Amino acid sequence: MHRLALDHYEPHARDTLSAQAYAYVSGGAGHGAAIRRNREAWGRVLLDPALGRRLRDLDCGLDLFGRRYRFPCLVAPMAYQLLAHPDGERATALAAAAQGAGFVLSCQTSLPPDQVAAGPFWFQLYLQPDRRATRALVEAAIAAGAEALVVTMDAPLNGIRNAEIDAGFALPDGVRPVMLDALPAQASRQAENPIAGAMAAAPDWADLATLCAEVALPVLAKGVMSPASARAALEAGCAGVIVSNHGGRVLEGLPATAQVLPQIRAAFPHALILVDGGIRSGEDLFRALALGADAALLGRPVFYALALGGAQGVSTCLRRLHDEFAVTMGLMGCERLAEITAERLYRPEVT
Amino acid sequence: MHRLALDHYEPHARDTLSAQAYAYVSGGAGHGAAIRRNREAWGRVLLDPALGRRLRDLDCGLDLFGRRYRFPCLVAPMAYQLLAHPDGERATALAAAAQGAGFVLSCQTSLPPDQVAAGPFWFQLYLQPDRRATRALVEAAIAAGAEALVVTMDAPLNGIRNAEIDAGFALPDGVRPVMLDALPAQASRQAENPIAGAMAAAPDWADLATLCAEVALPVLAKGVMSPASARAALEAGCAGVIVSNHGGRVLEGLPATAQVLPQIRAAFPHALILVDGGIRSGEDLFRALALGADAALLGRPVFYALALGGAQGVSTCLRRLHDEFAVTMGLMGCERLAEITAERLYRPEVT
Amino acid sequence: MHRLALDHYEPHARDTLSAQAYAYVSGGAGHGAAIRRNREAWGRVLLDPALGRRLRDLDCGLDLFGRRYRFPCLVAPMAYQLLAHPDGERATALAAAAQGAGFVLSCQTSLPPDQVAAGPFWFQLYLQPDRRATRALVEAAIAAGAEALVVTMDAPLNGIRNAEIDAGFALPDGVRPVMLDALPAQASRQAENPIAGAMAAAPDWADLATLCAEVALPVLAKGVMSPASARAALEAGCAGVIVSNHGGRVLEGLPATAQVLPQIRAAFPHALILVDGGIRSGEDLFRALALGADAALLGRPVFYALALGGAQGVSTCLRRLHDEFAVTMGLMGCERLAEITAERLYRPEVT
Amino acid sequence: MHRLALDHYEPHARDTLSAQAYAYVSGGAGHGAAIRRNREAWGRVLLDPALGRRLRDLDCGLDLFGRRYRFPCLVAPMAYQLLAHPDGERATALAAAAQGAGFVLSCQTSLPPDQVAAGPFWFQLYLQPDRRATRALVEAAIAAGAEALVVTMDAPLNGIRNAEIDAGFALPDGVRPVMLDALPAQASRQAENPIAGAMAAAPDWADLATLCAEVALPVLAKGVMSPASARAALEAGCAGVIVSNHGGRVLEGLPATAQVLPQIRAAFPHALILVDGGIRSGEDLFRALALGADAALLGRPVFYALALGGAQGVSTCLRRLHDEFAVTMGLMGCERLAEITAERLYRPEVT
Repeated sequence: MHRLALDHYEPHARDTLSAQAYAYVSGGAGHGAAIRRNREAWGRVLLDPALGRRLRDLDCGLDLFGRRYRFPCLVAPMAYQLLAHPDGERATALAAAAQGAGFVLSCQTSLPPDQVAAGPFWFQLYLQPDRRATRALVEAAIAAGAEALVVTMDAPLNGIRNAEIDAGFALPDGVRPVMLDALPAQASRQAENPIAGAMAAAPDWADLATLCAEVALPVLAKGVMSPASARAALEAGCAGVIVSNHGGRVLEGLPATAQVLPQIRAAFPHALILVDGGIRSGEDLFRALALGADAALLGRPVFYALALGGAQGVSTCLRRLHDEFAVTMGLMGCERLAEITAERLYRPEVT
Repeated sequence: MHRLALDHYEPHARDTLSAQAYAYVSGGAGHGAAIRRNREAWGRVLLDPALGRRLRDLDCGLDLFGRRYRFPCLVAPMAYQLLAHPDGERATALAAAAQGAGFVLSCQTSLPPDQVAAGPFWFQLYLQPDRRATRALVEAAIAAGAEALVVTMDAPLNGIRNAEIDAGFALPDGVRPVMLDALPAQASRQAENPIAGAMAAAPDWADLATLCAEVALPVLAKGVMSPASARAALEAGCAGVIVSNHGGRVLEGLPATAQVLPQIRAAFPHALILVDGGIRSGEDLFRALALGADAALLGRPVFYALALGGAQGVSTCLRRLHDEFAVTMGLMGCERLAEITAERLYRPEVT
Repeated sequence: MHRLALDHYEPHARDTLSAQAYAYVSGGAGHGAAIRRNREAWGRVLLDPALGRRLRDLDCGLDLFGRRYRFPCLVAPMAYQLLAHPDGERATALAAAAQGAGFVLSCQTSLPPDQVAAGPFWFQLYLQPDRRATRALVEAAIAAGAEALVVTMDAPLNGIRNAEIDAGFALPDGVRPVMLDALPAQASRQAENPIAGAMAAAPDWADLATLCAEVALPVLAKGVMSPASARAALEAGCAGVIVSNHGGRVLEGLPATAQVLPQIRAAFPHALILVDGGIRSGEDLFRALALGADAALLGRPVFYALALGGAQGVSTCLRRLHDEFAVTMGLMGCERLAEITAERLYRPEVT
Repeated sequence: MHRLALDHYEPHARDTLSAQAYAYVSGGAGHGAAIRRNREAWGRVLLDPALGRRLRDLDCGLDLFGRRYRFPCLVAPMAYQLLAHPDGERATALAAAAQGAGFVLSCQTSLPPDQVAAGPFWFQLYLQPDRRATRALVEAAIAAGAEALVVTMDAPLNGIRNAEIDAGFALPDGVRPVMLDALPAQASRQAENPIAGAMAAAPDWADLATLCAEVALPVLAKGVMSPASARAALEAGCAGVIVSNHGGRVLEGLPATAQVLPQIRAAFPHALILVDGGIRSGEDLFRALALGADAALLGRPVFYALALGGAQGVSTCLRRLHDEFAVTMGLMGCERLAEITAERLYRPEVT
């Protein structure tokens, strides 16, 4: 078992990153209550192991869109990974491939996708005000090998992150959203008036449906926090949804993803449902699956591990999560992901 | 987005204000539990955004008594603003007008109303033991341009604020309740025996009804914390109520305003209901409206901003609140205040 | 309003008292959870004021056993007050009389009752293994003027107070339980084997009934924490009960007195019910009455005030409580104690 | 009453033990939430004393498998006690015998059982992949005098204990699992690949049933945290179960033992049920019995006391627990263990 637990990367990375970059990555909407809420909600999920089972063939692999992943984990889309390390997104993608985890490339990548792809990857995008811009992003991603699209629906505007504002974060020289910069001029997400203008260009479900109809790749809607939003996304043609409050970065008052996940799973028993937000251990990952997720995305710890050790750092981090998850499956008496159900959750009797 | 979040003004102002003035302004009844309760209650209100809406014309303006405000926010009545800055109430009123917020002048103003009025304003008063004194206050306010009256019903006595008592607060030279000083001699609110005497002169609902009948301006009752009090105020002829626990300054054991607001709104679906207490961000303001308020009042942050930067400080503070509120509306998928309803509140399923 | 709030006496007294005496007085069973539970439970009791009432004649006086007290407060029985001040119990009794509060003399008094009595007082006792010893205590108290008896039923053994044990508390020279010392030799409460021996001599309800039958004074049972115990006490002939967990000193796991008080009042709507434990403000005293108590006892703050300032210290402390209580009554719209009912409690709607 | 409360041993032992040994003993799964959950859950169990009972013959003795113990407490099985003191398990066993407590020897003992046995003891074991190895362990234990077997069912793998991993714990020279070392070579619990290999060798209920059928001693299953697991153990032929989450060492998300104990007792009203996890006072022990346990096991405080003072340290620690328990029984009005029932628990009325 590698030394560093997943939440031990943050204090180390804090020393490595610039104060501005750290504030940008670590910060949450407002004073960060949604980040804490995410973490605490996993901690309240209690477990009920199936003791006394001999597990002849413990396997935590996941099949998704025809790919096999070594465990049900993907690296979440994160912007500007050159902030963390000179190898940026390339290092992260390499580590994910080495550890059998998925990798989602952000459309705010600081390296072009053809320099990043080290294995199978998905591509995250914001629907652009100009459809041609959206199409240009998608085509570039497909050309680099993207196997699925993740459309972020919860952030037509940047959230108000006090720590980031206090630190006066701005992109340093040499770090740019290279894919967005390459787009034809349009109203950009960094517009001066952050509100009315941006909202007038915000994507709606019809835009998402158009995209789903136009591309051959599976599309997942990210930022879904209610059965109603999940329904809209699935009806628009999405192959699945990602339950996410954007790592607590958009609205401080969003519930924890662990709170809403069971409701969404109950409403759509057969849908593909992923989740992110605050997962920091193999037990958290197990809890996510027991609450109804098919897989989970891991964000900030990967960014911090990248800052600390480049591809090797990320690889170590993902390996630790894999090992913890496998141990948890063993201790819980589960041989396959399919056995990780709500029956493995402790439910107090109310008398 | 301006740098300082609304709750960042307090530590700065603490360095600027005298220890006595800081204790007076910041303190709450007892050890301040009601202040903390107010803050924490907003933090427990979770949100359910309407994703995937293109908002062609996001507008957070409010119409009230024939006036249009840029956003649903008024500066709460606060006494003795010369404690904070040599420009006192004048600076605050100017900033409110500049930012399109309402302004409520306290009858304990340290500047006469005709020196303060910089735009539309409301006037807060305590009903005086002597009706002629009440009338004199109201007439002076109307002469200066007041457009509505706010009658504080919850503080016939000063609350017991330990921090203020410990600090030995007393008005410094040059700071006086100039309107009250100008009244004909009567039992004043600063009487030596703080209890029986004051209570014998405390206003009742009949006094309020008399006032409502006598003045042409709309009257709002402030300090309402229950449907029963709201009913009494509305039956007395009030145009609306302000749900308030006096910023936690009168009784330590009052519930948070966010706790009682939904009950009062449910009891009076069509009444004008404002709220104050612990609002420190655009998300808090959004929560207030989603719980049933038509608008909210902002208190201490304005006082602290005044201490830090006079009119400019208050203006910056109010602008920040406006911008945060507009961003929140956008992220929540609301184009107009009328769309901010209880449907935008996350309600956990109880199973 | 005097400067020191009631819970501000403790840190000052900590500097005045010896470490051993402080550990003895301040300590609670185990690590003190029951002390904290008492305090926190009052803090959770929220209030619903009756606004808009003119109170012509606010009066917080209480009639009890033919006496009128200025407000519904008695000084709780506390042992060894010479530990706090050379004037010991005499100073406390004097201050209580001066402020119109009741005074309960402990049978572990460090001064003989005839040197203490400064006004009306009650006498607290433990039933002794030897009935003649009990009778001797009672007769001495009556001779000194005791007007009621308080029989402590919850402490046949000393509780295990870690802080006191750690500090190695022992009575210093010159401080003795003078009334107990004067008794004929019998198994004392400070026996070497603290358990089986003491329990074999523990009082039962029949002993209490015997006492009630034998003495002309009203008898109150102290330490009642359930309707069942209250029933036993009342059936034994008691004139009332004192809901108390012994200031958190006997068992760490007892509920807060504010938790059990409403159940006991509901079971015995017409009984005389007093309460103690964690009351530190006029609002707490108001809450106690609203939850069903007729009056409350105040313990540790009095001991600390005695340490700080003798009779003057205790007087100031009691006066502050009185004034806070009167202000609270005024702010809550209550003219008489009888108006302090459960209707003045805020009860959240559960939806 | 001896000076040190049970949870006061830990800080002292921290100074005595090596950092590695301390991390090994004190650490819990993940960041230790299950350890804290255990402690806090006992603290939430509130008590309802039976006042006014004269207890002529207070006795806290327990009869179990034909033995009489002075109080319902056993020393929990703990590995490698030579880490704490040169006398290791021998000292602990001696102290337990001296104080009339039970003693459970771990199969990971660092001294051979025949050098340890100082009185009646039980033997804890993990079922080994090779049945002959299991039999060899059991035979050695029986030869040394073991009177019952405790089979740990909840730890086919080591939990992931961050503090222990961080400290890089490894057995120092001279400390070995001497009984396991003496087994014929087989897949050991310290295998390199901690997961799939170990799980393929994990014991199942059939293995337990085989053991129960083969040995004449009573067998208890340890690690039971649900009625389902208790049923499986009892159907396998166990004489009883030990409700345990392994001192919070295997899975961070297990509920507290105090949470699940009542459900298991309710499901099996007549079974022998022991409990461990977080018991640190006589009141905690009383709570365990009131929630349904027949006896409790005490773990870490014994290890720390051993580190501090060898056999004398453990003896003092157990004596303190005994005395606290006896005082608690007295204060609660219980003369015999059989009187410690759910009627002695405070249950708030829900209105």
